[in-house]
Amino acid sequence: MRGVFCESGTIRLLRDLPEPIPTADEVVLRVRCAGICDTDLQLAQGYMGFRGILGHEFVGQNDAGIRFTAEINNACQVCPTCQSGRPQHCPHRTVLGILNHEGAMADWVTVPQRNLHAIPDSLDDRTAVFIEPLAAAFRITEQVAIGPEVRIAVLGDGKLGTLCAWVARAFGARPSLIGKHPEKLALAGDGIETHLASETDSLARHFDIVVDSTGSNTGLPAALKLVRPCGTVILKTTVAADYTINLAPIVIDEVCVLGSRCGPFPKAIAALAKGQIDVRPLIGAEFNLDDAEDAFRAASTKGARKVLLHAMH
Amino acid sequence: MRGVFCESGTIRLLRDLPEPIPTADEVVLRVRCAGICDTDLQLAQGYMGFRGILGHEFVGQNDAGIRFTAEINNACQVCPTCQSGRPQHCPHRTVLGILNHEGAMADWVTVPQRNLHAIPDSLDDRTAVFIEPLAAAFRITEQVAIGPEVRIAVLGDGKLGTLCAWVARAFGARPSLIGKHPEKLALAGDGIETHLASETDSLARHFDIVVDSTGSNTGLPAALKLVRPCGTVILKTTVAADYTINLAPIVIDEVCVLGSRCGPFPKAIAALAKGQIDVRPLIGAEFNLDDAEDAFRAASTKGARKVLLHAMH
Repeated sequence: MRGVFCESGTIRLLRDLPEPIPTADEVVLRVRCAGICDTDLQLAQGYMGFRGILGHEFVGQNDAGIRFTAEINNACQVCPTCQSGRPQHCPHRTVLGILNHEGAMADWVTVPQRNLHAIPDSLDDRTAVFIEPLAAAFRITEQVAIGPEVRIAVLGDGKLGTLCAWVARAFGARPSLIGKHPEKLALAGDGIETHLASETDSLARHFDIVVDSTGSNTGLPAALKLVRPCGTVILKTTVAADYTINLAPIVIDEVCVLGSRCGPFPKAIAALAKGQIDVRPLIGAEFNLDDAEDAFRAASTKGARKVLLHAMH
Repeated sequence: MRGVFCESGTIRLLRDLPEPIPTADEVVLRVRCAGICDTDLQLAQGYMGFRGILGHEFVGQNDAGIRFTAEINNACQVCPTCQSGRPQHCPHRTVLGILNHEGAMADWVTVPQRNLHAIPDSLDDRTAVFIEPLAAAFRITEQVAIGPEVRIAVLGDGKLGTLCAWVARAFGARPSLIGKHPEKLALAGDGIETHLASETDSLARHFDIVVDSTGSNTGLPAALKLVRPCGTVILKTTVAADYTINLAPIVIDEVCVLGSRCGPFPKAIAALAKGQIDVRPLIGAEFNLDDAEDAFRAASTKGARKVLLHAMH
């Protein structure tokens, strides 16, 4: 089968990969569509040393043609971490297309049955492929209270940042989206105040919550300037490289710096199905899986929006 | 009057300092006793560029001989931060012996009337001088829930670390105190498990809460190894220098890193008065204010316990 294979910091479309064999608790899905995420771009540059097929944002279908997506953490279900209700943090987990499990940028993918989420008919593939990143944005709402009275800023006008701003808006807040690209900030739409990162001096210490989704080591220092004392900075993106930073402001201002990763699929599916969030403005380009290498080049372009791969003709 | 004067990264005992003049809302206290804190040692090395009299842990008395200590943050009371209930974070504040306000290592000190806390007769000066650092340790209990079921570790066997471990014990936990000095770990006493920092591999990801009171840039990376996924790391000490650190584990493990600074004086006074916490084992040496420069040398010795300055003969 075809698959986007990541190895030693390069990616190639291979055409003779073996079809994946499901474990006892897995099902096989025919992949319809997959999205390229910034994590994929980092993995393609050697992050985490991943070797295998990339892809963790996807829509697939079973033999009956029913469409599904799937949560990406495959937990052991039996260790103390799983038993204590945190299977997403299972130390023995594999992660679809990220850690010890082949991903979905291929003709076929295997996922645990329990990770499946059916996709409502009202959502086309192009929208449904955003369920995973939108769920990650919804994770914030499980960690902090967001509402009309909460002053929240999102740093980074990339895809995840925009999704986080939309989630905050859906919870009644009037978020500020802060970024470097006027054309990307313009996608945010009504109910979101946009600011260029270079023009935020007047917002110092203004926000109860600042979400860092810059994917850059400039994000945390900028967030610490914007958050109020005793406020919360949510780290929504990983930075593979080491940081050099003075952490004294965290102590002096008693800030809470909170890591945030994967989130609730059902909330993302419901928000998309209700039309509460329309992700389509975030789509930048669409390719056939045959042209995956071109697609990765497009996704790597500075300022690129979401690039989709369609696996079925 | 006498005073321990900090300037350009040096400290000297001066004998001809002017007596401080109280502002409209301040009172003058005759200083009885002051403690040397690690923050004082950092200030003496140039941290925050402080120029003036050091000292923020103290016992003083008024004209009637009644003993008091005082909270160290002098807030403006009128700005939005003060009005929102966070006067400790007032951007216009002065801080006793730390920021734009003369401290208490002197014959006289001025403090705002509203910052005063009377000292119960049952507490001698040597115990009462610990009220400020013990309050800082109690701050943790305002930020996270601590109890018998909570696995908590304190990193750093210095004075503040030991106080934090004692506070956790007072709240019913059985804390682990992790440090590098067997003789300091031995001060912790019953109900506290002590570990050498070099022997904690088996404790990886074990703790719900890890308090970093190492005052070192090795503290946070060590804490991130010990805390469980979705656990909390409390940064209890500032590190003046820049850090180089990989923050990805905070995101991947969804850890909460929480700054923690000054705390509730009444809780500290009550715990000392009830005999719930006995701070006296932490006292290393006592000097007269006349010998303050010797006292600072003693406090700077590696592994030194609390050094006290007595200002009255």
